[in-house]
Amino acid sequence: MGERPPLNKDTRLCISLAARPSNIGTRFHNHLYEQLGLDFIYKAFTTTDIVAAIGGVRALGIRGCSVSMPFKEDVIALVDEVEPSARVINSVNTIVNDDGFLTASNTDYLAIQRLIDEHALDPSDTVLIRGSGGMASAVGAAFRDHGFTSGTVVARNEDTGGALADRLGYDYAPEVGDRRAAVIVNVTPIGMAGGPEEHRQAFDTAAIANARTVFDVVALPSETPLIVAARAAGVAVITGAEVIALQAAEQFERYTGVRPTADQVAAASAVSRA
Amino acid sequence: MGERPPLNKDTRLCISLAARPSNIGTRFHNHLYEQLGLDFIYKAFTTTDIVAAIGGVRALGIRGCSVSMPFKEDVIALVDEVEPSARVINSVNTIVNDDGFLTASNTDYLAIQRLIDEHALDPSDTVLIRGSGGMASAVGAAFRDHGFTSGTVVARNEDTGGALADRLGYDYAPEVGDRRAAVIVNVTPIGMAGGPEEHRQAFDTAAIANARTVFDVVALPSETPLIVAARAAGVAVITGAEVIALQAAEQFERYTGVRPTADQVAAASAVSRA
Repeated sequence: MGERPPLNKDTRLCISLAARPSNIGTRFHNHLYEQLGLDFIYKAFTTTDIVAAIGGVRALGIRGCSVSMPFKEDVIALVDEVEPSARVINSVNTIVNDDGFLTASNTDYLAIQRLIDEHALDPSDTVLIRGSGGMASAVGAAFRDHGFTSGTVVARNEDTGGALADRLGYDYAPEVGDRRAAVIVNVTPIGMAGGPEEHRQAFDTAAIANARTVFDVVALPSETPLIVAARAAGVAVITGAEVIALQAAEQFERYTGVRPTADQVAAASAVSRA
Repeated sequence: MGERPPLNKDTRLCISLAARPSNIGTRFHNHLYEQLGLDFIYKAFTTTDIVAAIGGVRALGIRGCSVSMPFKEDVIALVDEVEPSARVINSVNTIVNDDGFLTASNTDYLAIQRLIDEHALDPSDTVLIRGSGGMASAVGAAFRDHGFTSGTVVARNEDTGGALADRLGYDYAPEVGDRRAAVIVNVTPIGMAGGPEEHRQAFDTAAIANARTVFDVVALPSETPLIVAARAAGVAVITGAEVIALQAAEQFERYTGVRPTADQVAAASAVSRA
C-alpha cells in the first residue's frame, strides 16, 4: 500500500476513448494507482476524430488507451499489432503503447474466458446467449474457444444474430421462446439502469430455474432483475460487475505491469461504482 | 482555497510539449489547481511528431498546451488563430483549445511587457539586449512595442543578431565591449545552472554599475551571477523567475479562466522550483 507520487513530468497517462465516457474506469484505475503507489494517472476522454486521437496517443506517449463504442473496430487499422483476443472478434478494447508501438487486445474476451474458468463452467453444457452486438460477439467467442460446442444465439436482429451464430457454429433463434440451457447469458441492454427495459428480466423464471448458471453482462446495475431472480431461485450467477472488474484488472496489468490482487480489484471496483 | 476534485471524466487536461520537459510547469499548474479547487490536471509531455501531437490535442479535447523548444514556430501552421503576441515574434508558447478551435499566443512576450510596465521602466531609456534566440526575439519585441526606440542587440552570431536588430530597428554589436545602457538584459544561457558559463556574469561590473535596471531571463537559478552582482551594486533587478511566474499565470488564466493572485503565483512558483 502506497500513495501515488505527485503528478510530475514522468507520470504516465492512460486514457479511455468512448462516445459517452463514464467515470468507472477513471475511478477504478486511479484508485489502484493510489493503493499501489504507481506513478500513473487515468482519465476518460471522448473524440470525434478517432484517427487523430490514436495519432495523439502515439505522439504523446500515452501509455494505455481503453477503447469503447463506437471505436472498437475502427482502431484496428490504426495500431501496429492486433492480439488474438481482439482479432477473433474484430474488436479492440485495450491499446498498449510501447515507445510508439501500439498493441491492441480485447480484455472483455479475456475476462469472460477467465470467468468461465473460475466459475468452472462445463463445456459439455449448452449455452444460450441473448444478444448479437459487439459484447455478444466477445461472449460467444469466449464460450466457443473454451470448448462449448453446443449453443444458441438469440437476437431479434436476424442479420447480426444469424451472422454471429454462423461464426460460432451455434444455432440461431429470433426469440428465447421456451428454449432452455444449462448456461444462459444476457448480452442485451435488458435490465440496464435508465434503459427502456430496466425492470425486465432477460430470461423468464422457467428458463432461470432450468439453468445451472445465469450470466448477465449488464453492469449498471450488476443486480439486474435477471440476477436478482437467479439468486432468489438459488441458481449460480456471474455478474457484469465481475466482467468489468476482471477486464479492468487485465487492462491494469497491461498498462502498469502490476497485477492487482482480487481483493484490490474488488475494492477498486466498489469505489468505481459508488 | 479549496482542493482539486478527484480525477474524473470531466477533469480538464492541460499539457506541455517540449523536447526536454521540466517539472516546473507541471508543479506550478497542479499546485494552483489544488489551491483554487479547479478540476484540472497538468502534465508535461514530449513528442517526436508535433503534427500528430497537436492533432491529438484537438481530437482529445486537451484544454491547453504549453509549447517549448523546438516546437514554438512549427505549431503556427497547426492552429486556427494566432494572436498578435505570437505573430509579432513568429513564436507560440501557449495554445488554448475551445471545442476544437485552437488559438495560439505567446505569454513570454505578454509577461515581459507586463514586467516592463510593473517595474515602470522608462521607454526613453536605452536598452542593451544580449542574445538573439527565440526568447531574445520576444524580449526585444516587447521592449520595442513598449516604446523603447533606442536599443542594441548584442550577439556573437551575426546572422541572427543582425536580423533581430533589423527587425527591432535597433543597433547590432557582436560583443558587449564597453557598451552601457540604462536597461541591460541577458537572454543568453550565461549563468544557467549546469551550463558551460554557469559562473559567469552576462555583463561586467562596470555595465551593471551604469545601469538603472538589470534584467536576466535565466530562471534556473534566478539568482544568476549577474543578478547577484546587480543586487550587490544596489541596482534594480528583474529576474527570470518573475518572467516564468508571470507567463505561467497568464497561461493559467487562459486555460482555466481564473487569474491567480500575485501571492498565489509566488507560492506556486516557489513550489514549482523547489
